[in-house]
Amino acid sequence: MRFTINREEFLKALNVVSKPIPSKSFVASLIFVKLVLDDRGLNLIGSNETIAISTLIPFAKNDQEIIRNAKNGAILVQGRYLVEIVRKLSGKELTFDVMDNAVVEISDEKSNFQLNSAQAEEYPEYDFNEDGKEFNVNTKEFVALVEQTSFAAANKENRPMLTALNLTAENKKLTAIALDAARYAKKEIAINEEVEFVANIPAKTINEIIRMFEEAETINIVVNERKMFFKFNNTIVASNLLNGEYPNVKNIVPKSFNYFLEANAEELLSAIDRVSLLTNDKNTVRLVITQDDVEVSSTTSEVGSAKEKINTFHYEGERLEILFNSSFVIDAIKALRAEDVVLQFIGEFKPFVIKDTKNDNIIQLITPVRA
Amino acid sequence: MRFTINREEFLKALNVVSKPIPSKSFVASLIFVKLVLDDRGLNLIGSNETIAISTLIPFAKNDQEIIRNAKNGAILVQGRYLVEIVRKLSGKELTFDVMDNAVVEISDEKSNFQLNSAQAEEYPEYDFNEDGKEFNVNTKEFVALVEQTSFAAANKENRPMLTALNLTAENKKLTAIALDAARYAKKEIAINEEVEFVANIPAKTINEIIRMFEEAETINIVVNERKMFFKFNNTIVASNLLNGEYPNVKNIVPKSFNYFLEANAEELLSAIDRVSLLTNDKNTVRLVITQDDVEVSSTTSEVGSAKEKINTFHYEGERLEILFNSSFVIDAIKALRAEDVVLQFIGEFKPFVIKDTKNDNIIQLITPVRA
Repeated sequence: MRFTINREEFLKALNVVSKPIPSKSFVASLIFVKLVLDDRGLNLIGSNETIAISTLIPFAKNDQEIIRNAKNGAILVQGRYLVEIVRKLSGKELTFDVMDNAVVEISDEKSNFQLNSAQAEEYPEYDFNEDGKEFNVNTKEFVALVEQTSFAAANKENRPMLTALNLTAENKKLTAIALDAARYAKKEIAINEEVEFVANIPAKTINEIIRMFEEAETINIVVNERKMFFKFNNTIVASNLLNGEYPNVKNIVPKSFNYFLEANAEELLSAIDRVSLLTNDKNTVRLVITQDDVEVSSTTSEVGSAKEKINTFHYEGERLEILFNSSFVIDAIKALRAEDVVLQFIGEFKPFVIKDTKNDNIIQLITPVRA
Repeated sequence: MRFTINREEFLKALNVVSKPIPSKSFVASLIFVKLVLDDRGLNLIGSNETIAISTLIPFAKNDQEIIRNAKNGAILVQGRYLVEIVRKLSGKELTFDVMDNAVVEISDEKSNFQLNSAQAEEYPEYDFNEDGKEFNVNTKEFVALVEQTSFAAANKENRPMLTALNLTAENKKLTAIALDAARYAKKEIAINEEVEFVANIPAKTINEIIRMFEEAETINIVVNERKMFFKFNNTIVASNLLNGEYPNVKNIVPKSFNYFLEANAEELLSAIDRVSLLTNDKNTVRLVITQDDVEVSSTTSEVGSAKEKINTFHYEGERLEILFNSSFVIDAIKALRAEDVVLQFIGEFKPFVIKDTKNDNIIQLITPVRA
């Protein structure tokens, strides 16, 4: 196996596939990148226990030669070292050459690196073209769908299913839901294909994946019982799905409310942000609403107290006093990306809704704190 | 005590004095900022066990009013909370008001914070105007003096004096020296005053202090047996000095050498940087020099090996092979800030010198590694 390659293109591809590569792993072969050179180009694969990424560097792009002097073959090279070496080399091109004794030589006019390598057969076998339900999404819309919901998933794994982002497709709609003990976020977007599926993908994983999309305009997604595949440009990312049933949350959002507060998102956000400087461990902030006044306040016994009034608001309802975790409310308001928000309450101990006044496709639900 | 103040000016001063404030301390009062309002303006003091900083906000600057509605007094407020509150407030001005029951109210049109406070008398007494040897330095020259030498000081405190930057003034020269077990850095700059002193200031501390100078053109320095004072703009920083004798390093730099290698600093640096990707725990890089060739190389048993040739060089001497800690040599070459450097060797096991080919005021000395 041998090739001379444009260093920048090689580095770009290595950066993509090396993201999941662990520095240590029980599966010893995962510390490697798999390189396969055949008639399609140079295929790189990197993976960990949850994600596998495959990307192809073609021989040429827009008439620009990328790979030359190619001799086909396959090999494993330690991923982290390979990335660092290719990053630090100074030449426009480098030559990658597998030598007799399973040593890879990476060289340019100035530098010469020899890396111990391993046989390609030692790497796990991945099939990046499994069958499944297939559809396309606009990248920006899908990234927003994930970002505006997945933050509400649980971090801790005592109920593993709650660490998932729950994705459901039916009636040409893709719905994302995340929840943990005290909050819930849901958003839906339109898709063009009539597909039906439910998939639970780890929220942490899908957040890593959306950061790989970069300039791709559309993502092709394939889902089956065990895996979800994201295909864009010359890259395929395969993620394992969580096994099991997501909690039934059909009726989690109340249908009717007794109190309605409309406010400017930015003003409400910065008021809560400021008073939360002086909260206790649970980030508890108090909201008191009357027809005349909206006040957020906080207090810590050791340090002091803070309060602030909201100037621009519209309120329907009796006097209401409610306590909440300020970081949950801040996350929810930010996720709405709205100019004006409406908070809908049933009572001081019941979960309340935060929505964009102008958009019903996204909803945030938060459970209050008890004093 | 009461005043209304321009928020930005207040924040700028708080940022200066709050830098050393610890989040926890055996001396309980150190978590506070001391605020004293008198006829000169608002004086803020923050400190830890090593540094104390005092800064004065005048009533007006360039005809712009900064403080108004002033009622003199003194109080202690928890430093970290005060900085965060003043940073997050949105108004152009804020009002600081000490209320009856030792609570401070910080407010603007929107927000109202009440912070528990403490009596000014509980704070340590600092004298920022102690007598001592006094001189002025150009800020840029002094910052460079510190940055180009202090990195060579020891990090670990098993020989506390080696954690110091050793500053010596005589004959209108200020000399800085730092050393640890395997390296030594020395630089001197000219000063205008005839002062004589030796001061050992913790290298970590002086590096924090030089970052506070910012736009000041000149720093006024006062040194006595126990302390060093840095005066600039409206700020005084007082640092404790280390007690004891600095090692005698008069004859540490050899007088004559057998091998002389001149090279381009950038080329040598990036070659060593690249091959050090594949070094062992001790960062050992091998340098082999002959009349025809300069090669740096490295090897690790598990990963592989690297080598690189230097193209532009001038060498006087026999064949030389020497091992060194690559990060020491990289630090030293960077610190020289030179276009071309000269490495002067006596032999493979003797300390070697790295200097700017054009400037004798700075010298770096490194002890080789034994194979």
